[in-house]
Amino acid sequence: MSSQNLIHFGPFEVTDQVFYKAPLCYALVNIKPVLPGHVLVIPYRPAQRLTDLSQDEVTDLFTTVQKVQKMLASNYFGTENTAGKVEDGSFNITIQDGKWAGQTVAHVHCHIIPRTKGSDEGDGIYDRLESEEGNVGGGLWDQSRPTQHGKFPRIEDADRKPRSAEDMNREAALFREQMVLVDDKS
Amino acid sequence: MSSQNLIHFGPFEVTDQVFYKAPLCYALVNIKPVLPGHVLVIPYRPAQRLTDLSQDEVTDLFTTVQKVQKMLASNYFGTENTAGKVEDGSFNITIQDGKWAGQTVAHVHCHIIPRTKGSDEGDGIYDRLESEEGNVGGGLWDQSRPTQHGKFPRIEDADRKPRSAEDMNREAALFREQMVLVDDKS
Repeated sequence: MSSQNLIHFGPFEVTDQVFYKAPLCYALVNIKPVLPGHVLVIPYRPAQRLTDLSQDEVTDLFTTVQKVQKMLASNYFGTENTAGKVEDGSFNITIQDGKWAGQTVAHVHCHIIPRTKGSDEGDGIYDRLESEEGNVGGGLWDQSRPTQHGKFPRIEDADRKPRSAEDMNREAALFREQMVLVDDKS
Repeated sequence: MSSQNLIHFGPFEVTDQVFYKAPLCYALVNIKPVLPGHVLVIPYRPAQRLTDLSQDEVTDLFTTVQKVQKMLASNYFGTENTAGKVEDGSFNITIQDGKWAGQTVAHVHCHIIPRTKGSDEGDGIYDRLESEEGNVGGGLWDQSRPTQHGKFPRIEDADRKPRSAEDMNREAALFREQMVLVDDKS
């Protein structure tokens, strides 16, 4: 991919983890998923807050969220139908809009977190989203941190397990294929 | 208000608690706010899931979320500017899309929860949103429960403190006035 097509999430270059490109936003596999299938939808323009987005950006962001939900439903719930029957699985759709809401990258991002019956039993995913375990910014920062500069502050947390680039790239490749199917149907 | 203008949230008639009416959705004060200013934005059409909404409904829902954020910012953060400075306060924007994600009323609703510096210190608002304390459906159910039918299952929780109709109506009236100012500026 040529350098002018590189995609950024805040200060981080995330091109290889992108699995869907809409006109004004993209979808990204997460370095710190709190549950399997936890992904992000992000406007290309690095606006910090939801209220910074234009109407076109808002429309593109959330219609893309809908499309990604359909893809995740077929992967995690075994159905294209996310509506109606509760057996079909659920989603937490969440924006941490600003620092005091837990935003760790100052660039609007919408979390999509698949939920199934088992996942509603006190697993504390929101706590995890707000803790170091869900610290997307910290994970990306650690990953991008130049090794030749050893003095950057580094968040330490025994539970922090950012995924490898290979793991994310594999998931991104799978989701990319699946999104083609969603687009073909819509 | 005439009966054909009554507004419903799932099975509940909530007309008096509505503080803003957009073309395809409305904004509602919450019977079970987990923090001050916690409100809901809801499409008139009682779709259960985000993926059930049309593009027009998605656009109207989230542009209304933006407008309500501006109103709440002026009320809770003392500024019209929700963007840029973190001092201006933050928001959690959340949809519990389906039962396994904590949805208690089977009608799409987007939570808007103002956050300020003090509110980010381990208050567990997401836990509260997922617990009986944030059980919007349970609160409305209890409120609407006909007293002559004593056998309905009733959720018991020592911490449950649904607000009175008077309290909600007072807040709705204030927010209604404030939304006029937001519309005048946009």
